Amino acid sequence: MPVPGPGYSITVRVEAPPSASAAGDLTSAIGQVGGVITAFDVVESHALTIVVDITCNATSADHARVITEALEALPGVAVRKVSDRTFLIHLGGKLEVTPKVALKNRDDLSRAYTPGVARICEAIAKNPADARRLTIKRNTVAVVTDGSAVLGLGNLGPAAALPVMEGKAALFKKFADVDAWPVCLDTQDTEEIIRTVQLIAPVYGGINLEDIAAPRCFEIEARLRELLDIPVFHDDQHGTAIVVVGALRNALRVVGKDIADCRIVVCGVGAAGSAIIRLLLTSSPKDILGVDSRGIVHIDREPLDNNLRWVAEHTNADGMTGTLHDALVGADVFVGVSAPNLFGADQVATMAPNAVVFALANPDPEVDPIDAQKHAAVVATGRSDYPNQINNVLAFPGVFRGLLDAGATNITDAMLLAAADAIADVVAPDQLNASFIVPSVFDPTVATAVADAVRRVAASDTGHGGT
Amino acid sequence: MPVPGPGYSITVRVEAPPSASAAGDLTSAIGQVGGVITAFDVVESHALTIVVDITCNATSADHARVITEALEALPGVAVRKVSDRTFLIHLGGKLEVTPKVALKNRDDLSRAYTPGVARICEAIAKNPADARRLTIKRNTVAVVTDGSAVLGLGNLGPAAALPVMEGKAALFKKFADVDAWPVCLDTQDTEEIIRTVQLIAPVYGGINLEDIAAPRCFEIEARLRELLDIPVFHDDQHGTAIVVVGALRNALRVVGKDIADCRIVVCGVGAAGSAIIRLLLTSSPKDILGVDSRGIVHIDREPLDNNLRWVAEHTNADGMTGTLHDALVGADVFVGVSAPNLFGADQVATMAPNAVVFALANPDPEVDPIDAQKHAAVVATGRSDYPNQINNVLAFPGVFRGLLDAGATNITDAMLLAAADAIADVVAPDQLNASFIVPSVFDPTVATAVADAVRRVAASDTGHGGT
Repeated sequence: MPVPGPGYSITVRVEAPPSASAAGDLTSAIGQVGGVITAFDVVESHALTIVVDITCNATSADHARVITEALEALPGVAVRKVSDRTFLIHLGGKLEVTPKVALKNRDDLSRAYTPGVARICEAIAKNPADARRLTIKRNTVAVVTDGSAVLGLGNLGPAAALPVMEGKAALFKKFADVDAWPVCLDTQDTEEIIRTVQLIAPVYGGINLEDIAAPRCFEIEARLRELLDIPVFHDDQHGTAIVVVGALRNALRVVGKDIADCRIVVCGVGAAGSAIIRLLLTSSPKDILGVDSRGIVHIDREPLDNNLRWVAEHTNADGMTGTLHDALVGADVFVGVSAPNLFGADQVATMAPNAVVFALANPDPEVDPIDAQKHAAVVATGRSDYPNQINNVLAFPGVFRGLLDAGATNITDAMLLAAADAIADVVAPDQLNASFIVPSVFDPTVATAVADAVRRVAASDTGHGGT
Repeated sequence: MPVPGPGYSITVRVEAPPSASAAGDLTSAIGQVGGVITAFDVVESHALTIVVDITCNATSADHARVITEALEALPGVAVRKVSDRTFLIHLGGKLEVTPKVALKNRDDLSRAYTPGVARICEAIAKNPADARRLTIKRNTVAVVTDGSAVLGLGNLGPAAALPVMEGKAALFKKFADVDAWPVCLDTQDTEEIIRTVQLIAPVYGGINLEDIAAPRCFEIEARLRELLDIPVFHDDQHGTAIVVVGALRNALRVVGKDIADCRIVVCGVGAAGSAIIRLLLTSSPKDILGVDSRGIVHIDREPLDNNLRWVAEHTNADGMTGTLHDALVGADVFVGVSAPNLFGADQVATMAPNAVVFALANPDPEVDPIDAQKHAAVVATGRSDYPNQINNVLAFPGVFRGLLDAGATNITDAMLLAAADAIADVVAPDQLNASFIVPSVFDPTVATAVADAVRRVAASDTGHGGT
């Protein structure tokens, strides 16, 4: 059963009798139906009645209704209004565009706008590189989606994807002072997406692709990297790969294994899975097995699209066939970016001793982490309610901070690896253990460490390379 | 000779002897070469030397150099550094994207981002109209350009246009709390511009076209109005037309004329001129003459493109031919949106008694306003250093505030006229005179009045109509 969380938090305004027992009745009524009260605020008090805002976490819309009904069933209690706090904070959107310059008087206006701005325009026309110095380009990233793979929800389209892109932009600002802007495209045609991003690029110092379905996302990313002189990063691929590789580095430290001796199973070979495989390969593990819903990927399996063919050609040295369960036997590491509840404790028991399990499917992992812990030495998930949350927010803000500060024109594997190492190294040797292989997403040193690492690689680069 | 203004303001850091006479020498040296000192700040003081930041207005880069050299020529004075204040305020760009939601802890993250945001996405997927309630769409406008007609500078391209679009976005926020975002397109192909704006539209509640060359701008605007369910406004056309019509309404009050009795000469029939003519026609003036570099527009003049043909068909009832000077004879009103120094006091003298002259070419008007004042009753320009500045900033912030608040899906002539009337009516009858026909651009009541007027029309509209 899901646990009530702040993602589903409601505030119920009720009228109730002013007695102490009545207040107790309210809280116990909510507790009895499984709601978790986080605040109890009396907003009005009269001789015969009080008005209270009770804020509590629920598990779902149905659960919220059950809570409301439990309150209404109490004698003398009337529910005035139920507010969904998650909806409340989204009202009117989550971003604003604010001027960094004063516009208080005529002099301000003459400098920031006409006539003064004309000289800035002329300077950039003469020397286009000045755009990075004299405009928002130096600190601004486009968060681009076509709405085809929104979170785990699927193809919701561009308008419904906007709340996620706004949230992403808010995280960019909060964690790395990057100005990010949502670009939600009303097309799912590969060529149109590529062309549109190319046409809007002059304003941006980097492109963050987001929630674009595979295999379209591979071609869009590859082609844009060719076409643009600014870095193109697909967070679902590269952000995930960075955090997984960083976390794995620390997990292997905990279990005392060298990646060169490890057999790694990567379950899910879409955008995230294949990017994880690509980045893992740079560290030369003993072998990788890619697994999807049709089982282990191998070179003789038909049909293979471009992505699966690449995976087949670069993994599974022994040409193994079979199911996910077959793949797990003797494996040192499992990395799942696929679907919920694919295996249990029994399968984890078949893995090599001191196994590492990253079960990252959201919201429900490939294996229940409590079950996995029975046999694995290190377990991580994508969830915030277990230890070792593998969360892209550890990577993307710092990566773009570094890229923008370096004025980077592209992004290389060396930068992704440096970012992974930086995340791993934020966990000090004396902090490192099976329950703490990645830093907290709120650790303010992470983005700085990642940015420094990326900037150093960018500075030492020739400026060319690719992932 | 141009007057030193804050659009060209420099700060010169000098070392000088600490004597009182030395300070006097500094200021008089600048005054002798025509610089206007606005600040004198001692930043360091030692026994034998002081370091001073002298801020002064110049007319040009050459003039700034002359000022610097005049300082260096003084005995014991060394110039350490010259900073151009206009460039300084543009460093790093003029906008930032800031979150409106707290992201301080796990609960914030769970509501603003995953997992809570998923419910917002699903709500919008189910009911697309909710995008205006739950995303930035409700308050956000795209400021779209292809960089083909940047200010009076011409075709500088998208990167060099960005400082203007940033300034525009800053004005939107400052004057009407509208979040505006620069969209600088790396194409000047009409079809590509239309398609790109269509594809990025889901994020926006309105489109402000800006600095796009005629005649391309007409087709882009017309087609986008057909394609999109949000209002499309071309500021160079409609913003200018609103302010001109509002100002003319008050100018005619000052001279006691009815527009039905007025012959109006509109010089320049590109984007701004033809939009002015279209909006003026709704008030049924006696006649309008359109004039361009080839003289008076009439139906037998060849060649006529679509725009000129429309002008020829709707103006010049008597089929007049000839030059601008011919057109001015007996005219009641001159509106110029064309080129500098096209006529002088002698031509103004040929106009009807109590003539109104709006000479809006920037930075140098069609007629010197001092010359025009010799014979005209009311004179206005686009400049900030004469009375009656006709400035689009009086219109566009309030127009979009009203459109967004109404959730308008299009923009109509009735809205443009209501905006023009609102601007005119901000000048109270007891304030109205020949030197005050439009409110100050810093009058905070203007945007509110314009927004109210536009919103009222939008609310009473069927939601259909066009300009």
